[in-house]
Amino acid sequence: MDLSPRDPDWQGRVRASFSAQKFMTLLGAELVHLSPGAVDLELAMRPELTQQHGFFHAGATSSIADSAAGYAALSLFAPDYGVLTSEYKINLLNPARQPVLLARGRVVKPGRTLTIAKADVYGLDDGEQVHVATGLFTLMSVSGVRD
Amino acid sequence: MDLSPRDPDWQGRVRASFSAQKFMTLLGAELVHLSPGAVDLELAMRPELTQQHGFFHAGATSSIADSAAGYAALSLFAPDYGVLTSEYKINLLNPARQPVLLARGRVVKPGRTLTIAKADVYGLDDGEQVHVATGLFTLMSVSGVRD
Amino acid sequence: MDLSPRDPDWQGRVRASFSAQKFMTLLGAELVHLSPGAVDLELAMRPELTQQHGFFHAGATSSIADSAAGYAALSLFAPDYGVLTSEYKINLLNPARQPVLLARGRVVKPGRTLTIAKADVYGLDDGEQVHVATGLFTLMSVSGVRD
Amino acid sequence: MDLSPRDPDWQGRVRASFSAQKFMTLLGAELVHLSPGAVDLELAMRPELTQQHGFFHAGATSSIADSAAGYAALSLFAPDYGVLTSEYKINLLNPARQPVLLARGRVVKPGRTLTIAKADVYGLDDGEQVHVATGLFTLMSVSGVRD
Repeated sequence: MDLSPRDPDWQGRVRASFSAQKFMTLLGAELVHLSPGAVDLELAMRPELTQQHGFFHAGATSSIADSAAGYAALSLFAPDYGVLTSEYKINLLNPARQPVLLARGRVVKPGRTLTIAKADVYGLDDGEQVHVATGLFTLMSVSGVRD
Repeated sequence: MDLSPRDPDWQGRVRASFSAQKFMTLLGAELVHLSPGAVDLELAMRPELTQQHGFFHAGATSSIADSAAGYAALSLFAPDYGVLTSEYKINLLNPARQPVLLARGRVVKPGRTLTIAKADVYGLDDGEQVHVATGLFTLMSVSGVRD
Repeated sequence: MDLSPRDPDWQGRVRASFSAQKFMTLLGAELVHLSPGAVDLELAMRPELTQQHGFFHAGATSSIADSAAGYAALSLFAPDYGVLTSEYKINLLNPARQPVLLARGRVVKPGRTLTIAKADVYGLDDGEQVHVATGLFTLMSVSGVRD
Repeated sequence: MDLSPRDPDWQGRVRASFSAQKFMTLLGAELVHLSPGAVDLELAMRPELTQQHGFFHAGATSSIADSAAGYAALSLFAPDYGVLTSEYKINLLNPARQPVLLARGRVVKPGRTLTIAKADVYGLDDGEQVHVATGLFTLMSVSGVRD
């Protein structure tokens, strides 16, 4: 599997695009790791992110999984292509009630038009990692959409 | 398909649980329709909900789809059971850049343990409806989790 | 949603391609309905199609759902493009133990590169219809792959 | 993650149930590896398993992925519980046109009611492995269904 970036400025581009995702700012997500085909995001628990039982809302968990997978894909795109999520599926494995969520997005199969990525989300709690979600994502490279 | 609520106070319960989802408050989602096995949510566009191209973030779109599907399921649950999302899959069909999103959650197959629901999300723009997403959800009824 | 075929010989092409799917012949599936963006397949129960409890194997159910969705998509493709399944998700709703399965594939969103379709599978038993599965499919149009 | 079998005869039970899947016999699939929470199946190419371009039909690929995931789950079930697939999603990554397919089913999260598993399918061709599919599966343990 070839995970060579095709854009010399792939790091700058991913970081700039992530910063432009106002929804990630609203949630409070941070980009904590970036390498070709791999992006990790972290999200700290706040009451605003919870569902009715006080866990992270599945939508919050999925949102950081989606952005981690999407930026793992974008890290490999040619300069003139933007990234859009075409579809994804996610399994919620354990209640997400830890102080911090870590979403690891990894490219499974790069492609010119479609890139397949996976994302695993872990709840971090005092040195323990709980696997709270796993998902598969199809990302589309779109020309003329600036990232 | 039997869509009879098993909780005499199903309406009160769904509304109270939705109000307790602080993440829905953070997004600004509103419950605009409730009937047995059916819940509609609306979400108005704000810059805080966007991804890097100014569209609704896939995570925001998915979040209201998930809550609409989850509450459609909860509307049919017996009094002592709460709802958790077990898994879902969503296809993003068109860019979500309309002033308002409408998520329609509908139960496809009610069950004692697992309920299958679908959710379709439409972008509303000056009388036009654009189909922006469609998804399938597995909701689990969990005893001892209060909703 | 525009469901106009772009190939004047769309009917002949879909029927010829379906006949060329030797796996559908192995299963015993028949194409029973064809209109633009819509294909129905039927599959009669035989012991060879069952899992360990005597129901249709989830793989058999999924296979006709996949072909129904794929040919619903192909019915709308331009002449020089073939169809490949990119991904799908399916929920098994009820045990599939009826004498006949009917898979209804319908295009949800046609597109030049990606077409999204759904498929619902029903078990037919003496005038009754049981909803045994529902799925969402992403089909890719591929140039240079003859269909 | 606890992957201890709860049935002393887990190996005999998995092998007997797999042998009872007449659909696996129709396809020609063989169980080539079995350990707690892990099952590998192999399927040799035959024209009867192909779609219109001569590749393995997505339904054939998915069928062995589903059985591999299902038996990985069953290997951990208590004696009186059978396994049913509740839902799955699969991404087809590369054309499946190799002489042999190998499906590796692995439990991701065991559970009393629901077990989550993944399956990866590889095409084996003269010492090369091509990753042709990856999927996520929800398996349900059902009492009173003999496996």
